[in-house]
Amino acid sequence: MFSKNKIKFINSLKKTKYRDLQNSFFAEGEKLADELLQSGIKITNILATKDWLELNSQKLNNCKAEIDEISEIDLQKISSLSTPNKVFVIAEQPKYAYEIDEISNKLSLLLDDINDPGNLGTIIRIADWFGIENIFCTPTSVDLYNPKVVQSTMGAICRVKVHYVDFEILLNSFKNIADFNIYGTFLEGKTIYDEPLSENGFIIMGSESHGISEKIKPLINKKLFIPNFPVGKKTSESLNISVATAITCSEFRRRTFPTQSGKKP
Amino acid sequence: MFSKNKIKFINSLKKTKYRDLQNSFFAEGEKLADELLQSGIKITNILATKDWLELNSQKLNNCKAEIDEISEIDLQKISSLSTPNKVFVIAEQPKYAYEIDEISNKLSLLLDDINDPGNLGTIIRIADWFGIENIFCTPTSVDLYNPKVVQSTMGAICRVKVHYVDFEILLNSFKNIADFNIYGTFLEGKTIYDEPLSENGFIIMGSESHGISEKIKPLINKKLFIPNFPVGKKTSESLNISVATAITCSEFRRRTFPTQSGKKP
Repeated sequence: MFSKNKIKFINSLKKTKYRDLQNSFFAEGEKLADELLQSGIKITNILATKDWLELNSQKLNNCKAEIDEISEIDLQKISSLSTPNKVFVIAEQPKYAYEIDEISNKLSLLLDDINDPGNLGTIIRIADWFGIENIFCTPTSVDLYNPKVVQSTMGAICRVKVHYVDFEILLNSFKNIADFNIYGTFLEGKTIYDEPLSENGFIIMGSESHGISEKIKPLINKKLFIPNFPVGKKTSESLNISVATAITCSEFRRRTFPTQSGKKP
Repeated sequence: MFSKNKIKFINSLKKTKYRDLQNSFFAEGEKLADELLQSGIKITNILATKDWLELNSQKLNNCKAEIDEISEIDLQKISSLSTPNKVFVIAEQPKYAYEIDEISNKLSLLLDDINDPGNLGTIIRIADWFGIENIFCTPTSVDLYNPKVVQSTMGAICRVKVHYVDFEILLNSFKNIADFNIYGTFLEGKTIYDEPLSENGFIIMGSESHGISEKIKPLINKKLFIPNFPVGKKTSESLNISVATAITCSEFRRRTFPTQSGKKP
C-alpha cells in the first residue's frame, strides 16, 4: 500500500528547493522510465501499474529501486501530466564534473539565462541528436529537474550533461585556448551559412527575452546570424530559442558530414 | 462600460465551433495587436487599458473597430493568458484562396495532422522567417485560430497564409507539374545536406505521433532525412516537429544564398 508520507515526498519533488534538498527528481511515462532504466542514473523508486510491472519484469531484475504497484487512480493523484502514464520514476540527480581539456576538443552549448522549461527540454533533445554532450547554463536559468524540462527531453536527459556555472568564470578559462572559438548567435553579424565553423568550441544562445547578456558579449569572438529569406523582407522579429539552436547545431554538424563524393561540402 | 453579452461573446471565441460560426478570432498583447493593426486583417473590436489606448491613439485613427477601454481586472477575466497584457483584439478570420500556378513557383509547407497548438504557431513563425508564404494543413489538424496557436505565432499569423485542404486532392493536382518536387521528411532516406533542393515545391512534415500518413507517402518523390551526429550513435528517437521543420527550411533557403564570393554554395 501507498503511504501518505510517500505522497507527501513525491509532491515535495515538484519544487526546486525540495528536489535539491533530497537530491532527487522524478520522470513519468514508459519512454522516460525505459531510458532511465537503461542509463547509469540511480533510480530510487518506481511506482507503476500492475500491467507495466508485468510487462517490464525482466528489465527490473537488476534494478535496486523500491518498487510499488499503484492504481491508475493513485497515479492520477501524484502525476504532473494531464494524461498520466503507467509509470512514475524517482531518481537521484546525477552530478557531472567537466575537464577543460576534454571540453576544449568538443562542441558545447551555453544557454544564457534560459527561462522556459519546454525550451530547455527541447534544446537537450536537440543536443542529444547532434552529439553535443555538454550544455552549460547560468545559475539563474530554469532548473534542469523541473518536471516540464524532464518530460520534454523525451529521455535525452539521460545522455546530455547539463552544468550550471558562472559564464564569466567559464569563458575566461577557455578564451585563450588555441583554436577554440566562442560563438554567439545574434540578430545581426555574419551569415552562419558563410562563416567557417569549427568542430569544437562554445555556442552561446541568449535568453528568450533579453538575448545574450552585455557582460558576456565581449567574450565572444565569432558572431553568427541566421538570415531570414529573402533578406530585407518584413518578417518576424526573431526565431524561438530552441528553433535557432536547432538550425545552428545542424549547420555546425553539416560541415563535418562527408558528401556523397567523399569531400566535405 | 463592458456588457455581460460582450464577455459571453468573447468566451465563446475560445471554442473552435463558435469561432467558425462567428468567423472571428482573438489575439492578446501589444505585439500581436500591433501586427494586426499593420496587417490587412479586419479588426472588429479592441479592448484595451487606458494607457495602451493613449499610447496608440495615432495608430487607431484609421481603425474602424469598436474600441472599449477596459480595466486590468476586467482584462484578467477575459484573458486566456496567465499574465494578461494591456490589449485584447477581436478580428475577422481572413479567407485565403490559392492558385496552382502561383503555388507551383514557390516553396510551401504541408503539415500532415499537426496536433499541438504550440507547434503550429512555432512553425508559422519559422515559415515567416524563411519566406514561406503558404502552409497547407489537413482538415483534422489543430485549428489555426486556437488562442495558443495565435499567441505562439508572435504575429507571423498576419503574414503567412494557412489553408486547410485534403492532401490527396492537393498532391494529385501538383504531382505532374514539371520541376515541382514533393519532399517528405523521414527518419531514414537521403541526408538532407547532400540532396539537391529546389527553390519551389512542397515539404511535407508528419504529425507528432504518427509521422507522414500511409496514403500520402506514395505521392512523395523526394525523401529527406536529418542525420544525427555522429551517425550510428545512440540518441533520441526523433526531433520535435517544429525543430525538424526549422532545420529543413533553413537548409532549403541556405542553397539559394550567395556566398561571400558571389557563388552559390
